[in-house]
Order: sequence, then C-alpha cells, then structure tokens
Amino acid sequence: MALIHYPVLNRNGDIIAAAVTNLDLHDIARAARTYGVRAVYVVTPLEDQKVLAERIIDHWVSGIGSEYNPKRREALELIRIQDSLDGVLADMVQRGVGTPRIVATTARSRSRSIDDWVLKEKMAKGSPYLLLLGTAWGLAEEMFASADFILDPIKGIAKYNHLSVRSAASIFFDRLLGNRELSGPGH
Amino acid sequence: MALIHYPVLNRNGDIIAAAVTNLDLHDIARAARTYGVRAVYVVTPLEDQKVLAERIIDHWVSGIGSEYNPKRREALELIRIQDSLDGVLADMVQRGVGTPRIVATTARSRSRSIDDWVLKEKMAKGSPYLLLLGTAWGLAEEMFASADFILDPIKGIAKYNHLSVRSAASIFFDRLLGNRELSGPGH
Repeated sequence: MALIHYPVLNRNGDIIAAAVTNLDLHDIARAARTYGVRAVYVVTPLEDQKVLAERIIDHWVSGIGSEYNPKRREALELIRIQDSLDGVLADMVQRGVGTPRIVATTARSRSRSIDDWVLKEKMAKGSPYLLLLGTAWGLAEEMFASADFILDPIKGIAKYNHLSVRSAASIFFDRLLGNRELSGPGH
Repeated sequence: MALIHYPVLNRNGDIIAAAVTNLDLHDIARAARTYGVRAVYVVTPLEDQKVLAERIIDHWVSGIGSEYNPKRREALELIRIQDSLDGVLADMVQRGVGTPRIVATTARSRSRSIDDWVLKEKMAKGSPYLLLLGTAWGLAEEMFASADFILDPIKGIAKYNHLSVRSAASIFFDRLLGNRELSGPGH
C-alpha cells in the first residue's frame, strides 16, 4: 500500500502536501505486518518530511528502538519512502514485484467504484496490487485518474464517514486480506 | 465499548495504569461514531488522567475545536470517563441502557473464546453489550473473570499480532457492527 501525503486535499478541497506523522507510520505498519502486506510506501516529495520519516524508521529498525521493541522493528521495516506514485511503481518493478493494479480509496461515494469482495476475488488471482490511502482530507482527483479501480468507501451504520486513515487502513486490510469469510455463516 | 487504562499489563506482565492518549480518544471515537457505538468509556482511576481526558473532550465538544471541526465534536461527545468497570456498569444502568453482557478482547488465544460471527448474532438479539479493549499490553486477568464472553483475537495472515488498540477497535467495530456480510458471496 501507499500512504499518500501529496497530492491530497485540505478541508477546503485545495491540493496540499500533508505532514508525515509518527503514529500513522506505526499504526499502519503494524496492521500491514499483521495482514501480510509486502510494503508500506510513504509518499511525499518534501525533503524535511522524508528526513522525518527516515529518522522514525531508523530509530525502530536499526537504532535503540529495535532492541527495546523488536516487534516494532518487524513492522516498521516494511516502510519505504518515495517522492511520488511514479517512484513507488518504479520501486515495485525494481524489486521484482512487477507493475501493480492501482486501487484508490475514498471516504466519498463515487461512480464506478467496486466493493471489497469483488476486489478480494481479483487479488486472489495473484497479480500485485497497490492500495492508495490519502492523508488529510483524502486523495486529490488526479490520483483517481491514475487508478485502475476505486474501492467503495467504508460505511458504518451511521451517516458519519470520518474515520482516521489509520482506522481505514486497518479495516481495509481486514476486509481484503483477512481469512474471515471462511468462518462466516454458510461458508 | 470501554477503553481500559487500568487494570492493564505492561510489557513484563505487571498490572499498571496506562496513560490516556489524545489519539486513542480521537481515533476510537471517530470509528465508534461511524459504526453507531452508543458510548466510548475511558476507564482510569487516576485523577490527572481523568482531567487530561476531560480537557481533550471539552476542547472538541464545547470549546474552540467544536467550531473548527464539528465532525470531531460528533465523535468525541460519545466519550464518558469512569474510574472502573463498576462505574461503567452503573452509568449504563443510570442512562437506561441496562446491564450489559461484557465482552473482553485479547491479542492472545485463550480457551473458551468465541468468534466475531457468533458474537454478532448474539448482539443482533438486542440486549446491550459492552466491549472491553485494553491499552498498553492488554487487559489484566481479572478483567477476563468479569467478562461474559471473550472474543477471539484478530488474526491476520502473518504470525504477527501487535495491532494498536486503535486498529483493533476499528476492526472489531467493522466485524461486529458493519453491514458487510450482506454483500458477501452467497448472501
């Protein structure tokens, strides 16, 4: 998956570069490790934000934190920093994963989006997939144009759709990568 | 649900009172609002931690934050602070919800735990349920003794089971309160 910090929207719908936050990296990397996600890309073109992300990762992967909490190392070593979506795609090819199908996520209903069961079945066929999650108020429009698929928003039972990106990532991983449907009624 | 800060375990298995964190409150309240959870109890007997939690809630529910981000108010107004599980139960009775069945959660496999589908079916019958989530290294043993049910741990596909409490809460809400199974294959 890729956690996109640029281009994303602010509360007014303007395109911005969002700040990298320590907790996004920890929570999402831990959930990714739990569900067998191969890499968590942190996408930002801002040099100071890349330095911040690298400092967090180094602390837990090779620094003092790696001895204090080796489980955290196992999670944070999934993180790779890239300038842009193109950088992510190039890295995936270079690492031998190949060019993925790109799946954009959103908290808003959009036309031609697909539900998680449909995507899960596609993913089971074995091709690589890249899930894009936007920080701040979500992915900018151009990211949807780059996507092969758009995933339905997560809907609870309320009309409220303001999950944190950490919660959304966790729920998407559980829906797309969990083994749950095997224990469901009738399965 | 109740986010338990005492009694919980530290990394060595000792019983401690964990610190209240701003982000636990925000992420879990937002997820709770999304899935129609009636209340999020923050359970701590420590006076300074109760003051901290109240300050966070006041800022967003009636202070400056409520004007800046009304959506955050809608989430944080679900939070209620209590000293102990007994306090939570008394509050639920006083508010007319009644005495709930108590469900403890854990990241470790335990005997006599039930899976989320089974619990979801029980919950659909309409009685009130209270889900306990532990901060730090999880609920102390006495909390399991107080529970009517223990929920199976969340398992991904890896052997790694170190989700944040924010991720675990989000996934449990989605599994127990989401409408997803209706769109699953065969339904």
